Amino acid sequence: MLACLVDGRKRQSVSVADRGLQYGDGLFETIALSDGEPRRWSLHWQRLESGCLRLGIVPPEEARLLADLRALPSPAGKSVAKIIVTRGSAGRGYRPPKKSLSSRIVTLHDWPRYPQSWSDKGVRVRWCDTACGQNPALAGLKHLNRLEQVLARAEWDDEDVPEGLMCDLEGRPISGTMSNLFVVDSGVVKTPSLTACGVEGVMRRAVMDYCHDNDLHCRVGVLNRADLYQAQEIFLTNALVGIWPVRELGGRAVDAPGPVTARLQARLSTK
Amino acid sequence: MLACLVDGRKRQSVSVADRGLQYGDGLFETIALSDGEPRRWSLHWQRLESGCLRLGIVPPEEARLLADLRALPSPAGKSVAKIIVTRGSAGRGYRPPKKSLSSRIVTLHDWPRYPQSWSDKGVRVRWCDTACGQNPALAGLKHLNRLEQVLARAEWDDEDVPEGLMCDLEGRPISGTMSNLFVVDSGVVKTPSLTACGVEGVMRRAVMDYCHDNDLHCRVGVLNRADLYQAQEIFLTNALVGIWPVRELGGRAVDAPGPVTARLQARLSTK
Repeated sequence: MLACLVDGRKRQSVSVADRGLQYGDGLFETIALSDGEPRRWSLHWQRLESGCLRLGIVPPEEARLLADLRALPSPAGKSVAKIIVTRGSAGRGYRPPKKSLSSRIVTLHDWPRYPQSWSDKGVRVRWCDTACGQNPALAGLKHLNRLEQVLARAEWDDEDVPEGLMCDLEGRPISGTMSNLFVVDSGVVKTPSLTACGVEGVMRRAVMDYCHDNDLHCRVGVLNRADLYQAQEIFLTNALVGIWPVRELGGRAVDAPGPVTARLQARLSTK
Repeated sequence: MLACLVDGRKRQSVSVADRGLQYGDGLFETIALSDGEPRRWSLHWQRLESGCLRLGIVPPEEARLLADLRALPSPAGKSVAKIIVTRGSAGRGYRPPKKSLSSRIVTLHDWPRYPQSWSDKGVRVRWCDTACGQNPALAGLKHLNRLEQVLARAEWDDEDVPEGLMCDLEGRPISGTMSNLFVVDSGVVKTPSLTACGVEGVMRRAVMDYCHDNDLHCRVGVLNRADLYQAQEIFLTNALVGIWPVRELGGRAVDAPGPVTARLQARLSTK
């Protein structure tokens, strides 16, 4: 962590009474910075604001968040900002306080050192045993209840396998631990429906929007494991890596990057 | 919050990098204190330790937790201690650090002012719309991912209704937002199975142990809503309230306290 602002002030700590710590009662955004400027800010902000509304948390003012981001001592080139918004501090008990004040925590981090070949030639991906639990009330949100992802990411140590796929309790692929999942099958881009579990990623949104605007058919629905092995292309998305082609899934080779993946990478590159 | 110890030191705050805040990566215990002495400590400790092992968190030493509890400026009579154990502070990313140091946070709180009549004559209980999401990997644990309980408890404001029942996604009753659920039907004590969701409460354990030791038949299994309305008695348990008879469920009157509930209250009272 290179720097930290809590409610706009330089601090490295939060109150023990913060409901983010007590109950995971909040949301977060992980944002790519280019020379200090947040990329895809409007998508991040829209998701954060709508997430706050779904959880009944007072959203922070957008201008304050932007001021926080600009106040970070961001280096030239690429870095990472993380925003956490919680329901603020309160007494013991699940019940949200009547007058709920949100807290905002903005931190600056180094850009992760992923090999360039992962973007260029693709990544190796495994299957996780830890499932995505289902709950429509929380599905899609980038909330702070992330134990499933923690347990899934704890399953392997191979530094050459940067991501694992998580399935729902019926064994249907949902997403990576930190990324969204897409396949390309007969020219159609497909991604799992996230109405019961998973996180609606900003980069997933960007891919869907690009497809919509460019007459590339994109379908959101149920995917099965067989769909992944049948597909001509598989790729993963998140706000930092952009698009990673998948070149190996559960030990089976996949052509990477396929033509659709390469086109999306070219148009939506985060470089 | 009357007092707070973080890793044994008087502090009111934790690092922003603590994984408890970042991901809800931890567990907690809420403990009744009588003249500063923790009640049912062995059950709390067993649950906390086994929870840490399930999550791969290094459990704190029991002696240190007990020293923390004794160092609290607990008032005479009843008060509440809360222990939070997290995976400690680390860099960004779900992956647990290889050398994981846990953090322990111990806080002291006033005893909640529940009316005595709730124990004596029973409580009014409602049905919550928010479901308990299912995930066997997390089921039973008193972990820090508690957004479902927060959303369920946010559903109502009636001060005369202290608890709401949550069902799983198939509509089967699982528990209250902060309590476990029991029914008594034809002399058999029944409580929902918590292998897919819910929290294995310490007071639930105490009731089950009492039944086992006293030839009172106790069955853990699937309950349906109809089972609740058919039952002669319904009661709720948690470490602070002990046992609350239910006198009204979703607008329907229930006899309270029934004879089995009254017997369990007498034997397991937290007074």
